Amino acid sequence: MPTIVVDVMPKAELLDPQGKATTGALDRLGHGKFQNVRIGKRFEFTVDGPVDDAVLAEVRKVADEILSNSVIEDVVSITVDGEAK
Amino acid sequence: MPTIVVDVMPKAELLDPQGKATTGALDRLGHGKFQNVRIGKRFEFTVDGPVDDAVLAEVRKVADEILSNSVIEDVVSITVDGEAK
Repeated sequence: MPTIVVDVMPKAELLDPQGKATTGALDRLGHGKFQNVRIGKRFEFTVDGPVDDAVLAEVRKVADEILSNSVIEDVVSITVDGEAK
Repeated sequence: MPTIVVDVMPKAELLDPQGKATTGALDRLGHGKFQNVRIGKRFEFTVDGPVDDAVLAEVRKVADEILSNSVIEDVVSITVDGEAK
């Protein structure tokens, strides 16, 4: 069954405290070459049936209205992965 | 600066309570065509300098040992996104 992947990240202009803490921890652990780490969410939808434009439009609507908080987050990508997972 | 994206998902054989709750909520809201939703994490690393094999190996190590809990999660992908973010 096809899988649709939705990626949601904190907006670029906002501080991401979780990411900042991770950046600091990696630096203390000797991984200082990573300038910045930001942490978001990845949703995998399993759809029964073919993925057509209507399904993608519904996913886009769900991603914008339900899965992400548009005040602080952006939906950065919606991709279809046809491989079985 | 290049961005390296690391995706971490709960293992397929484990119940994902957060995803199950989201699947149920979407169904009640009229989005019943999504059979299953699983929720994982997406990390974006900003690296100062070129991304070579050594950097990718370090990211892989960090992803496996620090960013994911290998008992319950899998690192599903590590990709390089050269676009400015």
